[in-house]
Amino acid sequence: MREVAIIGIGQTPVGEHWTTSLRHLAFEAARNALRDANVDKVDAIYVGNMLSGEITGQEHLGALVADFLGLSGVEALKIEAACASGSAAVRVGTMAVASGMADIVLAMGVEKMTDTSGRETTAALAMAADAEYEVSQGVSFVALNALLMRRYMYEYGWQHRDFANFAVNAHTNGMNNPNAMFRFPVTPEAYERSPIISSPVGLLDASPVCDGAAAVILAPAEYARTLSPAPVLIKGSAIATAPLAIHDRPDPLVLEAAVLSAQRAYKMAGITPADVDFFELHDAFAIMAALSLEAAGFAERGKGVQMALDGEITREGRLPISTMGGLKARGHPVGATGVYQIVEAALQLRGLAGENQLARARLGMTQNIGGSGATIITHILESLA
Amino acid sequence: MREVAIIGIGQTPVGEHWTTSLRHLAFEAARNALRDANVDKVDAIYVGNMLSGEITGQEHLGALVADFLGLSGVEALKIEAACASGSAAVRVGTMAVASGMADIVLAMGVEKMTDTSGRETTAALAMAADAEYEVSQGVSFVALNALLMRRYMYEYGWQHRDFANFAVNAHTNGMNNPNAMFRFPVTPEAYERSPIISSPVGLLDASPVCDGAAAVILAPAEYARTLSPAPVLIKGSAIATAPLAIHDRPDPLVLEAAVLSAQRAYKMAGITPADVDFFELHDAFAIMAALSLEAAGFAERGKGVQMALDGEITREGRLPISTMGGLKARGHPVGATGVYQIVEAALQLRGLAGENQLARARLGMTQNIGGSGATIITHILESLA
Repeated sequence: MREVAIIGIGQTPVGEHWTTSLRHLAFEAARNALRDANVDKVDAIYVGNMLSGEITGQEHLGALVADFLGLSGVEALKIEAACASGSAAVRVGTMAVASGMADIVLAMGVEKMTDTSGRETTAALAMAADAEYEVSQGVSFVALNALLMRRYMYEYGWQHRDFANFAVNAHTNGMNNPNAMFRFPVTPEAYERSPIISSPVGLLDASPVCDGAAAVILAPAEYARTLSPAPVLIKGSAIATAPLAIHDRPDPLVLEAAVLSAQRAYKMAGITPADVDFFELHDAFAIMAALSLEAAGFAERGKGVQMALDGEITREGRLPISTMGGLKARGHPVGATGVYQIVEAALQLRGLAGENQLARARLGMTQNIGGSGATIITHILESLA
Repeated sequence: MREVAIIGIGQTPVGEHWTTSLRHLAFEAARNALRDANVDKVDAIYVGNMLSGEITGQEHLGALVADFLGLSGVEALKIEAACASGSAAVRVGTMAVASGMADIVLAMGVEKMTDTSGRETTAALAMAADAEYEVSQGVSFVALNALLMRRYMYEYGWQHRDFANFAVNAHTNGMNNPNAMFRFPVTPEAYERSPIISSPVGLLDASPVCDGAAAVILAPAEYARTLSPAPVLIKGSAIATAPLAIHDRPDPLVLEAAVLSAQRAYKMAGITPADVDFFELHDAFAIMAALSLEAAGFAERGKGVQMALDGEITREGRLPISTMGGLKARGHPVGATGVYQIVEAALQLRGLAGENQLARARLGMTQNIGGSGATIITHILESLA
């Protein structure tokens, strides 16, 4: 198997882009990545996206993006795995290069969540859950996370305020990210006062509905150094699944797919959790951040929140997370999020994270979650510079 | 690159399955393929599907299908390329095995087009076209094909009745396929009398709205013979794209993506069109069959219809097409169609096509079209028995 490296990255600011269409967002991120890689052609394009059909009335995004980039002719596909669609596209691109079917690949994610011409956004997002056995009961996606958070608090004795540092850390880091949607600080007091969306989930536990696109250019690692001054090796890449409906899982408080995908990625990379310098995790809701820390092996069961309380997740802590704002403050344009995570990890590994640059960033990990944990995709990235 | 082979195939009957849900259709096809391959575990699942969000209110099909098959834990993704989603899933599965990331892969397509809980089916199908520059003008997908057919007739002087044999051949072959939706013959007279849907496209030019699922099991060719008595080698596999909107193409009567993807597949397989024994093409509309024959190198420009008139496309002809009924008679459950084509080609190559068995079937080609030609996927298959 050929090793695969990232030779270029690009992104758009995350926000409510009322005057920018899906194809323009995709174009901007892809163009930025192509320029960063200093290439103007690719062999294949894989576009992660969840909701273009429901929101924009447009499927067939592979051909659309290829066309709009002036690259018609190349292989192009859309990849979907709910909110994990972005890193799924990177995974497929990695397989394309690893197999030798392609040399230079554009893997990207794009999502336009505002300005829907179809289903209302909350209804569209619920399609990540089980339509017949969860959504038909009237539960929304936020409510599923609320059920998990309530159970976690009950089971382990945590209070809602104990989760505050996930939001505080994300907003602190988002302030210095020019592409973040929310660039203001949040205090523990503001967290406690924030309005309840679905008890016990408050507004500051939740990531926003927004638009954005992010992209990477992949190439064989064997000659990545000839193409880029600072390539990033995809040292580990793994997808795992769990039952779609939360009630079908043996233990709803264990993200089994995260356990599996992290273990597979560690094995592929030949590392242990202790080797990871920072972790771009899927903090779509505070409860998901806590569960991810536990499933990936950084905290014991029920102790993910303790890491936040102890300040271990800050840029100076044992395991910095959401170093550019995470889903909470950078924003969560669902099908693009996994690529934002990888782009941000690459920025850290290349020493380009600006005021948020970590002192030690040689090995970074990203983890992208689809649904309430049914698809979980882990990537382990290493600087080749 | 590891060579990849098909070691098992499965399908459901195509039809209006009002009492069978999307997940049950997927389950049936996958189970049949797993049984045929005599395996009960896979490393990864790739599900081709176009419309599950719009029609069924369900995205995240990778995890859903893995779960419903009792295979939760494995890698699983949904792949979308409009009506070419099925063969796109086979393409991604091929890359997964070729790269060494997976050994045994389930690649499948499923589509549930009846019983919509969202957009009306014709509106949903239009998402294969350009939402902003084609669909916003009020054009439906049938109408786009009608424009192409009218232009073809005008440019080359064909009459509508000259296309009759595409429908006659497809229905003749569908009669002996137990999984075909339409198992009755069509005469040239019936073709001429059939009601106009969108002038000049008549009812018997068009494939039906329907439900179905089909699946293949992929494995490394190097040990496929130890797993299956009659493996089928994926000798060529290629995707190409063209501008999404017909009016953006330099020549709307040349399926440029078909030219490119066929050339790439021929090159990968090391063959020429003359080596192909039969061709499962994308006869969603009669005009698409004619254009495919030309783009893939079997007929000169404007002469695809002549092949039908001359009987060259029948089971006894120079290049049999739609040997199990094609999209016209077997049916066209859009995201599943590309896998049906591959399953049927495998049946021919394995000598299991029953009354429709071709005298010579060593090398088969399939071609699956997304939209009005924006994504075209070609596979070349060879018997390893």
